[in-house]
Amino acid sequence: MNDVIQNMITRRSCKQYKGDPVPDEIIDQIIEVGLYAASGMGKQSPIILAVKDKAIRDELSRLNAKYDPRKRQDPFYGAPVVLAVLAPKSIPTAVYDGSLVMGNMMLAAHSLGIGSCWIHRAKEVFEDAEGKALLKQAGLTEGYEGIGNCVIGYAAYENETVIPRRENRVFRF
Amino acid sequence: MNDVIQNMITRRSCKQYKGDPVPDEIIDQIIEVGLYAASGMGKQSPIILAVKDKAIRDELSRLNAKYDPRKRQDPFYGAPVVLAVLAPKSIPTAVYDGSLVMGNMMLAAHSLGIGSCWIHRAKEVFEDAEGKALLKQAGLTEGYEGIGNCVIGYAAYENETVIPRRENRVFRF
Repeated sequence: MNDVIQNMITRRSCKQYKGDPVPDEIIDQIIEVGLYAASGMGKQSPIILAVKDKAIRDELSRLNAKYDPRKRQDPFYGAPVVLAVLAPKSIPTAVYDGSLVMGNMMLAAHSLGIGSCWIHRAKEVFEDAEGKALLKQAGLTEGYEGIGNCVIGYAAYENETVIPRRENRVFRF
Repeated sequence: MNDVIQNMITRRSCKQYKGDPVPDEIIDQIIEVGLYAASGMGKQSPIILAVKDKAIRDELSRLNAKYDPRKRQDPFYGAPVVLAVLAPKSIPTAVYDGSLVMGNMMLAAHSLGIGSCWIHRAKEVFEDAEGKALLKQAGLTEGYEGIGNCVIGYAAYENETVIPRRENRVFRF
């Protein structure tokens, strides 16, 4: 089993983070490989809103909680960094393209010893007036759809238990 | 740069394949890691229709061409194997989840020296009466949405040129 496959099999969603900051060069490497994800017609349409600023991170968490059916206090599980992926609504493959960026970032994080988790409701958050105001403040024009929030940080626990796959997921010809 | 990141940066969509068959153990390894992709609520909802059979592969290609605006004769670029990803329409994260399976498979293929490409229009193909009949023949119940077709095979050319990323894709707080 090569390293790529080994990393895919041992990657798990991390649901509790240490407060320790993640070094900038690691965050930037994770972002960079996110940008290398495949995209429809090679258009590289998704963009990343990278949030390290504590106040903005907390604001995004609060907005996310607003749409969380479980109403958790911090849907980001204490992760210090949020990498929100968005893609232009005008691109028919926006959701597919953005998801691939999320996948690359989660796997890259794991390969660098950093925990991550896909936190959903990015769509709702960036349709919210307050979410839209944040995008504007970041310099983004209108017309972007939120795809997912990749939260990253040092995991507060070790978990490389490989979970068996559900049965009957492969059909063959 | 670790192997995972190196592979992400050098992976490219392959648009011409040799006819040589891909060994079963390699196909199965690619499928297996596809199943390890993250999924909403950990439900592992996506499934894979793995097609090696030449007649069915050609049938899928013909159906795909039907929805191809460019009307190519073989939208699968001569690839011998098609790994179609579908997910239950009842799962709100179907498209996101299925896209992550596609991403894992494309990257795993690259790490194993196998070319791959995301061929779209899986949604249209499996909404088509003939596509639905194929799913039924494979033993699938109704209610699945096509997410993408991951075609794999030995690349007919070498291409590890790293394409620069489009500018202005990262916004920061």
